[in-house]
Amino acid sequence: MPDPTVLSTQELSASEAKWVTLKRISWKDQTGKDRTWECAERKTRGSSGIDAVAILAIIRSKTNAFPPSTVIIEQFRPPVNSYVVELPAGLIDADETPEDAALRELEEETGYKGDAVIESSPLQVCDPGMTTANMKLVSVRVALPDKLETPEQKLDEGEFIVKRVVELAKLHEELKGYERKGFVVDARLSHLALGYDMAVRASKELL
Amino acid sequence: MPDPTVLSTQELSASEAKWVTLKRISWKDQTGKDRTWECAERKTRGSSGIDAVAILAIIRSKTNAFPPSTVIIEQFRPPVNSYVVELPAGLIDADETPEDAALRELEEETGYKGDAVIESSPLQVCDPGMTTANMKLVSVRVALPDKLETPEQKLDEGEFIVKRVVELAKLHEELKGYERKGFVVDARLSHLALGYDMAVRASKELL
Repeated sequence: MPDPTVLSTQELSASEAKWVTLKRISWKDQTGKDRTWECAERKTRGSSGIDAVAILAIIRSKTNAFPPSTVIIEQFRPPVNSYVVELPAGLIDADETPEDAALRELEEETGYKGDAVIESSPLQVCDPGMTTANMKLVSVRVALPDKLETPEQKLDEGEFIVKRVVELAKLHEELKGYERKGFVVDARLSHLALGYDMAVRASKELL
Repeated sequence: MPDPTVLSTQELSASEAKWVTLKRISWKDQTGKDRTWECAERKTRGSSGIDAVAILAIIRSKTNAFPPSTVIIEQFRPPVNSYVVELPAGLIDADETPEDAALRELEEETGYKGDAVIESSPLQVCDPGMTTANMKLVSVRVALPDKLETPEQKLDEGEFIVKRVVELAKLHEELKGYERKGFVVDARLSHLALGYDMAVRASKELL
């Protein structure tokens, strides 16, 4: 398949936009002074009050046939005109819980069925100086009977997502490899991998 | 000081906005089909091509008087109408390198002077389904001669930022404490702390 390409980009008025909008916020600061702030906002937020979920799958073998692993995805992202490596993620449908959205998106984007939600994070904000966007990070257990299986994805038409299983202990190195190949890594996934690596280095007194 | 308050929020046209704008992207997908995507963009990006830096300070004592620590900040963020806990961060000034911006912002927001840049990440994208925003994460060494010192911040007028030094090994728990007190945590900092915690749990076979 040919690579996707950005053809052109133009300014969009907030009234014409379907998915995002701009807001001007009037607020009073700690000294009582009136101030303004500009930000962007998704128009799709449903009754949950949460825009999106990301999923950290912990893929384990019941026979220890492979080391603890996770699954990451690669997809072309028009806003940054690049292939981006990310955790599986998606917007929460109207009237869906974040945990249901996490299990649904994990299966659609990677084929893996989560056995249980290990932990659902409190609300996190994605880029709070610039947008109202928020999310939850849901950790999901995927317990495989023996060897690593690679189930079929259940992608919608027009979705082009590549999944890849990576050992947790090698995630930081794998992301460096992606960067050398010209992929861009999502900041949240990068921070997760750096945190993992820092703990390993701290345990070896290499920090 | 009284808490800051959001007074009102209104839709803002892209032409009136000073800091952010909206874009409509025309692109061709993997099958050759013409498609569109909407996103938000900062208007402030300079010659570096990078919007912002975040700083992971590794604060060490030369006498091991305290465990390896980092510094996080608390500030009110109008877009999400909450106090948010984040890594120190800031926009890159025109003609400034990301590493210079990191050392400058660390000192302004926390008072700590970095001794050396340990690692400067490749470009990361902040929320690539919604915005063009990008950043680098710069790890900075702060070596203190003995006990933990808490130098004065160098905040601009109108900046209200609280800094807090946290042991790296306790970061995940500290963030949970913030959430119980009603703070919201930035997704990137949350992911870093979860990564650290996952590695500790993996080393204890608790994953």
